[in-house]
Order: sequence, then structure tokens, then C-alpha cells
Amino acid sequence: MTQLEIARKGKISSIMQRVAKIEKTDPEILRKKIAEGRVILLSNTNKNIEKPCAIGEGLRTKVNANIGTSTDVVDIKYEAKKLKICISAGADAVMDLSTGGDLTKIRKDILRNCKVPLGTVPMYEAAVIAASRRGGLKTMTEDDLFNAIEKQAQEGVDFQTVHCGITLESVERIKKQGRILDVVSRGGALLIEWMIYNKRENPLYEKFDKIIDIARKHDIVLSLGDGLRPGCVADASDRGQFQELIILGELCKKAQSAGVQVMVEGPGHMPIDQIVPNVILQKKLCQGAPFYVLGPLVTDIAPGYDHITSAIGGAVAASAGADFLCYVTPSEHLRLPSLEDVQEGIIAARIAAHCADIAKNIPGAIEWDKKISIARKKRDWKKQMELAIDPVKPFKLRKSSRPIFSDVCTMCGKYCAIKLVEEYFK
Amino acid sequence: MTQLEIARKGKISSIMQRVAKIEKTDPEILRKKIAEGRVILLSNTNKNIEKPCAIGEGLRTKVNANIGTSTDVVDIKYEAKKLKICISAGADAVMDLSTGGDLTKIRKDILRNCKVPLGTVPMYEAAVIAASRRGGLKTMTEDDLFNAIEKQAQEGVDFQTVHCGITLESVERIKKQGRILDVVSRGGALLIEWMIYNKRENPLYEKFDKIIDIARKHDIVLSLGDGLRPGCVADASDRGQFQELIILGELCKKAQSAGVQVMVEGPGHMPIDQIVPNVILQKKLCQGAPFYVLGPLVTDIAPGYDHITSAIGGAVAASAGADFLCYVTPSEHLRLPSLEDVQEGIIAARIAAHCADIAKNIPGAIEWDKKISIARKKRDWKKQMELAIDPVKPFKLRKSSRPIFSDVCTMCGKYCAIKLVEEYFK
Repeated sequence: MTQLEIARKGKISSIMQRVAKIEKTDPEILRKKIAEGRVILLSNTNKNIEKPCAIGEGLRTKVNANIGTSTDVVDIKYEAKKLKICISAGADAVMDLSTGGDLTKIRKDILRNCKVPLGTVPMYEAAVIAASRRGGLKTMTEDDLFNAIEKQAQEGVDFQTVHCGITLESVERIKKQGRILDVVSRGGALLIEWMIYNKRENPLYEKFDKIIDIARKHDIVLSLGDGLRPGCVADASDRGQFQELIILGELCKKAQSAGVQVMVEGPGHMPIDQIVPNVILQKKLCQGAPFYVLGPLVTDIAPGYDHITSAIGGAVAASAGADFLCYVTPSEHLRLPSLEDVQEGIIAARIAAHCADIAKNIPGAIEWDKKISIARKKRDWKKQMELAIDPVKPFKLRKSSRPIFSDVCTMCGKYCAIKLVEEYFK
Repeated sequence: MTQLEIARKGKISSIMQRVAKIEKTDPEILRKKIAEGRVILLSNTNKNIEKPCAIGEGLRTKVNANIGTSTDVVDIKYEAKKLKICISAGADAVMDLSTGGDLTKIRKDILRNCKVPLGTVPMYEAAVIAASRRGGLKTMTEDDLFNAIEKQAQEGVDFQTVHCGITLESVERIKKQGRILDVVSRGGALLIEWMIYNKRENPLYEKFDKIIDIARKHDIVLSLGDGLRPGCVADASDRGQFQELIILGELCKKAQSAGVQVMVEGPGHMPIDQIVPNVILQKKLCQGAPFYVLGPLVTDIAPGYDHITSAIGGAVAASAGADFLCYVTPSEHLRLPSLEDVQEGIIAARIAAHCADIAKNIPGAIEWDKKISIARKKRDWKKQMELAIDPVKPFKLRKSSRPIFSDVCTMCGKYCAIKLVEEYFK
């Protein structure tokens, strides 16, 4: 049985118990939300996960970090180092998006060392297999696709992105719409190429029942991918994007009815004032299913700083109800990320998630801020560093610039406001 | 005559003409907004500014960068380098917040090389003079304070922060409120110390007419400082903060009535969901005067990353109507910023300002995004770098990781989505 089926039967699984404790919430409330499809629990039945993760309404906003090789850069040891950073920097989940090298070996290595839930995009493996065995993506078979989904589920992958909302209908709508950056989803683009070349409907849509069967068997969470997400702010909230979302809403209901846990992916690039309406409408169109946003990046003009453009969008989205933020690194649009990029990307996304958790009144959220603020008032620098989201960077910055009086910093020196007024506010 | 007085007489000054052209707006509309106090024009009458700057309703959101020495770090050459970075990175205004070394010399050096408007906090110089001449801040005289204001106005400073809303009444309200971090404004703390020690009302409040006279004479813009701004998210939107804002609203009206241009400063640290209500209420309580926000920082847990916490808050504030963003650097709360910090802080604040300008429908805002997105579609890397808000960083990142096919990047390699679908969307 999947966690959704267990919850629907009114039962609280041991993993629900563990998660309720971590989330400081009542197990029965958690169970109810899972039963309603408003919360998902990442936990493949084929393994025992060290750090299980629930995502959705009323819970702490979670952060995902993408790692993995590309066709241009295959360095397995380097990816292993990235995984370590993901865990130490506090990612709640990791996705292996490898497209270069021995994908099975890479994924198994990552799975072995991944304490948090792991996600994948099986389409990538299907495309790589088709390319290596038959010389090109266009020769991909439906079996390539469903075999990749099944195999990865068996191996212990906890959630899979499936771009089921890309259909002949929704692609046609994108064409009619006329976009600056037609399609920027890698999985989406691969599918569209295959569909148009073979003049066929998307198998992930047409044979969605097959995916449901696999997902139920291993209790993997389906992450309904937004292959038609806008790739620049000018393309956001267009008819193509919403056509896909409507289809995802239907599939979301179908999966849930079959006992399969599901979340829905969202944009992308989007002007800041369109984010709140998008979150509200996604939740409405998908019956409150958890919303997994890729950014959103609020402007296109800042390559090199897209961890910031997406932290802005992610903070706004999460405070409006988005549940899961995919990190974006400073190297987005430029290169495969470095170790430093991974660290910076995770911290930026965690900042966005946490500030939203304060707005969402998540238990324990503002208490963290209060603790560090009390340490700041006391000018207890050791405690401030310990409590910081990244203790290393602030320590280095402070150490590089020693104040004359050790209880203040070199910004204000003897005119430290906190110190000046201290005696008057006792 | 001040620009406000000129505008009220129905006249369009030459500097209004210049600014209207830069802002791509109608000079008559600009004049009207200045006459209403909804837009201010930074332009001290004692000098000719190279890059004048208007701030307020309907205009591009502006960014300020703080530089200057502290009591602990006095390196005039280093501050001169920071000023260069401010200009090259695109700050619209600069504030010299020096408190260490020969303040007059430092300020004059900065003024000589500052193409954009310069702001100061004259209270700092008054405090330093009192400390050096009479051994301590507590011995500061009213003359020290008003002389600093007048002297800096004569020298050509374009805007001055004056903490007029700190009164015996508002300080008492902070005490009654009970805060974690009572007062975090340096100017505010200095004034409070003086007021409580001397058992006197704040001269900046009591003798506000004197400030008005000086401001009108040189047409400096008064930036009504929020000395009682919250210093942590838990302290935000409290009775003390709003007590000060009410007083600032009254003084704002008084200054405008006397023909003096004025803007109002705002927080600070603030939960993301309180930012929009704060911006709306500030605009209401201050008759639509331009709003200059210091952040807001949406969480306290991220020392080392406060350029990000404030970019999130600044983006939300500006898209709700805030007009002027004070940058925050990664070194906030830790040390006097470095050159790299200044660069990163300005870019982060400019990203926040720009994404808000898209939401505000500012002329030319989204066109910038469209241009870079078209270059991205064409995989015209040179053009993308040229159009980037910081052309250097993305160039370096891309250069460090060469793709096999030169038209894509190492993130996706041969599976570049944009390239894959290109032929199908012609």
C-alpha cells in the first residue's frame, strides 16, 4: 500500500509518525492531509530512508537540489562531492539529473549515499539509451521510457518527474501562442522532438495508467512536470502554460484516485506580481496538491545571480502556498554548477523557504530568528555563528575584519547601536 | 527655489527636463508628481550633478549604496575604490556614512568623484565632533547638530537622513512595547543616548523648522529616518515603529508645505507577509511621499547572505510601491563591507529593483528581459553577456566550463532544450 492508501484507510504509518515528530505536527492531522492529497510523503517502499520528507500544506517549505553529470561534463567523484554538500547545506531532497556517463552506476552511487529522498527524470535515461543503442532520440520506444521509470522505481528513487502534460494539444497551443523561448524544459524538449518526428501522442500522457501502476507498486511520488513552463518573464502565464496545467490537474486527480501520491511542478521564469495568482490557481486546479516550483526567476537579466532571482520568486511563491522549492545556482544558464554553486544555491533557496515559513506560521520558524536575534543583542558572536543558516561564511567574514572592541563589529565600531542604547532599555 | 517650489508654480526646470528624458516620461507628468510630493529630485543647488536622480511614483525603482569609514577601519583610498564600484555597478545614489578619520576631507573627496547624488547622516559628524572636542557624545550641542546639517548642505550633499521621529514619546512607546533588539539605527541610538542622558527632547524634532530652512535654502532632500525601525523580524510592525511613522507623516507634511522635498525611510527587518501592508500604510500616512527602504530583511538567520534576505524584501516592497532601495551587503551585521561586498550588494539590490519595475510596468523594464531572452534563444552568448546586469561574472562562469558545442552550455550539452525544439517552432 502507498502512504496515500494507508492514510485513506485511517491508519498512521510508522513513517508518518516519524515525520509528524520532525514537523512538530499532530500525526492525525498529517494523516488527514496525506489522505486528501495535500501532503505527500517521499518514501520508496524498496528502501529505508534515513531522512524521510513530507511536503505540502501546513509543513515546513522544503528545498530540492539538482546534481548530476551532463553530456559535456562527466565527473562522478565531483558529483559525489556535490551530494555531500547537498546534505551538509541542508537540502531536503536531491534530484539526480545526469545525462552523461554510466547513468545506472551514477544513480546507484548517489542512492547509496543519499540520506534524503532522491528524485529523477526517467526520460533522460530513456533518451540516452535510445541514443546509444539505436543512434538517436527519435528511435526511442515506449518501452525505453516505461522501463526507465520502472527500473529507477525498483532501485529506490523516491520521486520522478514525468512530463505528462505535454500533449499534441498543449504543444499546438504553444505554437499558436508564439513565445520568445518556446520550450526550456530539457525533458519536455526531448519529448516534443520525439512526438513531432514520430507524429505520435506523448506516451506519458496516453499511457498514464502504466505510470500509475508502477508508482503505486513502489510508492514513488509522481512529480507532474511542467515541460511547457515559461523560459523568460515575457512568456509567463500564457495560454500554453495554463493548457498544460489544466491537463496536469486532470492527471493529478486520476493518480490520486488510484492511490498514487502526486505533486505538480511549476514555473520557471515569471514577473513577481504574477507569482501569487499562479500559486493560488495551481492549488485550485490541482485540488490542493503540493506545488513544486522551479524558481520562479523574477527576471532574465541576471545570469550569474540566478540564485538571487529565484530566491526572490521562491520566497514569494512559498509564502503564497508553494511547498517545495527547487534550488537554482549562480551558474544557471551558464554551465554545470560547481561545488560552490551548489552550496550557494541551497542556502539561497533555504532562505527563501524559511522566510516563507515565518509568513506561513510554521511551528518553530520565527523561533529560530528570535534565538539568533537574542544572541545578536547580547553580541554573543559564537552563538550567532552557531545559529546561522551557514555558520562558515559569516565566521570567515567577521574574522577577516577584527574590531577594536571584541563585542562589536567593524561596521559600527564604538557606535554600535545595540551597545549604545543597551543600558537605557534594561 | 526648490524643485518642489518650481513645480508648484507650474514650471518645468531644466533638471526636470533631463530627468524626464532619462525616465522616458512626460515632463509635465513628472512636474505634477514633484508638485504633489510624490516624486523628489535629488539635486543640491550648490553643484551641477552629472547624473541627477528622481525618486518616486511611476519612476524606475532606485538603488542606494552606503560607503564610508568606521571608527575601526579608516582607509580613504579603499573607500574611493568603493565609490568607483558604486558607479560602475549602477548605484543611483551613494551615502557616505563615515564615522572614522577626517570626515570633512573624506566627504569632499567622495563629493568630487561622485557622479550620482550623495546622501549623508549629519548626526554622525555632530557626534564625532562632540566626542573629539568635548570628550563625548553626551556633550553634543544643538549647534553641533545644525552646523553639521548646514555645512554638509553647503558642500553639495543632495539628501540627508534626519531622525526626527525619535521623540521622548516614541522612545517611551518602544520601552512599553518591549523588543528583542530595541534600537538598531546608529543615528537613532546616538540621539537616544543624548536625549536620555540630557533629559531633553530630540532637537531634530523640536527644531524641525531650522532643518526646513536649511533644506529649502540648498534644496536638499530630507530623508526622514526611521531610527526606531525593527532590528529583527520578531520586532517588526510594532507600536513603536508605527508611532515613529505617524510623527514622520506629520513632519513630512510640514516640510512639503514649506516647499522642502522629503522622502521617508522604512524598515529594516520584517516578515515577508508584513511588507506589502507596511508599504501601503507608509504611503497613506505620508501622503504618497517616496518610500526609501533599508532592506527589508525577511529573516535574521542568514548573516553572510543578507544581500539575499534584503533582495527578497526589497523586491516585494518595491513591487508594492517602495521607490528607493538601500543596498545591503553580504557583510551586514559582520564587518565594514569589502569591495566585493559592495559589488554584490548593488547587483542584488538592482535585481530587486528591476523585477519590481517589471511588475510596476515601468517603461523599458520588461524590454530589457525580452532582449536578453531573444539572445538566449539565439544562443548569442556575446549579446547575453553584454545585456547582463553584471557582464563580468557570467562571462567568467561560462569561460570556466567550455561546452563541446560552442552554442550551448555544459549544463545541458547536446540536450539543450532551446536547441532541440528550435526547428519545430519556426
